[in-house]
Amino acid sequence: MKIAGRHYRSIWLHDNGWGVYIFDQRKLPWRLEIVTLETSAQAATAIREMWTRGAPLLAMTGAYGLALGLRENPSDDNLNATYAMLLETRPTAVNLKWALDQINSEAQKYEGSARIAAAYALAAKLCEMDIATNAAIGSHGLPLIKDIHDKSNKTVNILTHCNAGWLATVDHGTATSPIYRAHDAGIPVHVWVDETRPRNQGALLTAFELAEHGVPHTVIADNTGGLLMQQGRVDLCIVGADRVTRNGDVCNKIGTYLKALAAYDNYIPFYVALPLSTFDPMLESGKHIPIEERAAQEVTHIEGLNDQGDLQKIKLMNSGALNPGFDVTPARLISGFITEKGLLKADALLS
Amino acid sequence: MKIAGRHYRSIWLHDNGWGVYIFDQRKLPWRLEIVTLETSAQAATAIREMWTRGAPLLAMTGAYGLALGLRENPSDDNLNATYAMLLETRPTAVNLKWALDQINSEAQKYEGSARIAAAYALAAKLCEMDIATNAAIGSHGLPLIKDIHDKSNKTVNILTHCNAGWLATVDHGTATSPIYRAHDAGIPVHVWVDETRPRNQGALLTAFELAEHGVPHTVIADNTGGLLMQQGRVDLCIVGADRVTRNGDVCNKIGTYLKALAAYDNYIPFYVALPLSTFDPMLESGKHIPIEERAAQEVTHIEGLNDQGDLQKIKLMNSGALNPGFDVTPARLISGFITEKGLLKADALLS
Repeated sequence: MKIAGRHYRSIWLHDNGWGVYIFDQRKLPWRLEIVTLETSAQAATAIREMWTRGAPLLAMTGAYGLALGLRENPSDDNLNATYAMLLETRPTAVNLKWALDQINSEAQKYEGSARIAAAYALAAKLCEMDIATNAAIGSHGLPLIKDIHDKSNKTVNILTHCNAGWLATVDHGTATSPIYRAHDAGIPVHVWVDETRPRNQGALLTAFELAEHGVPHTVIADNTGGLLMQQGRVDLCIVGADRVTRNGDVCNKIGTYLKALAAYDNYIPFYVALPLSTFDPMLESGKHIPIEERAAQEVTHIEGLNDQGDLQKIKLMNSGALNPGFDVTPARLISGFITEKGLLKADALLS
Repeated sequence: MKIAGRHYRSIWLHDNGWGVYIFDQRKLPWRLEIVTLETSAQAATAIREMWTRGAPLLAMTGAYGLALGLRENPSDDNLNATYAMLLETRPTAVNLKWALDQINSEAQKYEGSARIAAAYALAAKLCEMDIATNAAIGSHGLPLIKDIHDKSNKTVNILTHCNAGWLATVDHGTATSPIYRAHDAGIPVHVWVDETRPRNQGALLTAFELAEHGVPHTVIADNTGGLLMQQGRVDLCIVGADRVTRNGDVCNKIGTYLKALAAYDNYIPFYVALPLSTFDPMLESGKHIPIEERAAQEVTHIEGLNDQGDLQKIKLMNSGALNPGFDVTPARLISGFITEKGLLKADALLS
């Protein structure tokens, strides 16, 4: 999508044909810093220290990281060592492992410079596949927005939580893809962006994306969406997903469940946009998903811009905090899934 | 309740018999600054600039402010002028007007020094009444906590939102009163404190109160309560109320509705603690309550302690924000009301 009128992907190849550009997303929206990854170690650091984030983008950074490693040394030993180094940067990231496995299998078919070329070619292909998937999610979600506008002839108000935007994928995003499609098609949309405490990915990343692409939006505290739904100021909710179980329960950023409850209580459609690869048929229901507990400091401290324009961290409270990262939205609260193959209902997942 | 082992009220008379002590609550929990109000103008500033807050405490600050004004000049003209000055500090605060009216009526029965004495005596009496009301709320709420503990023989986990604590009243608080009673009675309790964005009264004030009184507690992002309820880690919710309509709908701090939905969805009792004076029989339902929209800067900026230990404000986002202060929790989601007269169901309010 666009930044200051120019189209960007969230990861792309350097003109030299082997370096890889990413944004240092820790600095957004305050500074637009484009970083070049030139070694597999740099790619590992970028993943580990969250310069780059979002399941699909992490996977692509890993894929290119393995290609960079092979360019340093295409031996079997180095392939194995680089694979292991990249995998342990985020051991629970399923997509990352999937992408590393893809590159690894492909690389094993070749040796020397052919191996390097094959790894780069497949990494590029995986990026194109991600973009195609997200574009298809946008196509299948677009009618949901268009239908609301056709009936009301007013701006369509869409609420989203966290960042399931293009910065979390290679382009388009998942939850944002139908929104960008609608906006680009001239349908008037306005997005309510949950700030998404504690890490504020909504206020920092989703709001940045929407602003740069020119989509009208307003940030709200996570407490606010319920009232706006009661007041008829939300027409549709679209969120992303980290994992979806056999029965259609959705594990997503903490707080998603509360918005789904409010949408259900106010007869507002609540959609989850995701690539089909997010479905995990091995898990029966949301009760079986382990919930990651993150550092309390993410709640007790926060970073922002001080009067001098410098990034500064401050302490928000004296007490201790608990910081689980995700919750589970039961399938019964979900209107449907927007996938690259079309709209699905929760009860269609089992078939 | 206690701060560092010593009992405090949130407002109390100076030893000189006419000055009034309050805490500068803007500084909590970072600094414990006790301020002496010596003039009605100082009282007006303390209310207007939120050194003091919470409907009952604002009312008492107003009552003493009017007494201070009469001490400066007990004439009819000054009584009227001081009444008007104090009233316009927070024109929508119903309790403040009520307390000012009480003092005004009483003062009109006397002249000169007798008028001053009468105003001080009534202000003191209103404070005692507030304390007695809140203590009674604690007595009536205590069995809810005790029953849970009697059945489980485990720590009772209570979730609360915002600050309906002793710092918002003269002592005990409303939502916190049953919690303090249970804790003081030796029942093991642990409180999940919603941080309560955007102003973070939970993380700043409720957590401070509980810490100083020795009640175990943990701050959570407002997104988190739903997950904890799903996981069986919340036994009971108790919140305060700003206004309750004829049908039992509750207007309270933004975000209350989302927690009530989650409690209902997980079969967890959700109680509202309040003095009966909070009921507004003139409003048919929550649909008729106007919702105050506050400054966007409360969402886009936040204050905290920097590394040097100084209070500092930082900017959290570049985009604009919407900041409604309250939402309405429908009566159907509320298990009951804890009042100074006992527990009530929503359908009992009409009788």
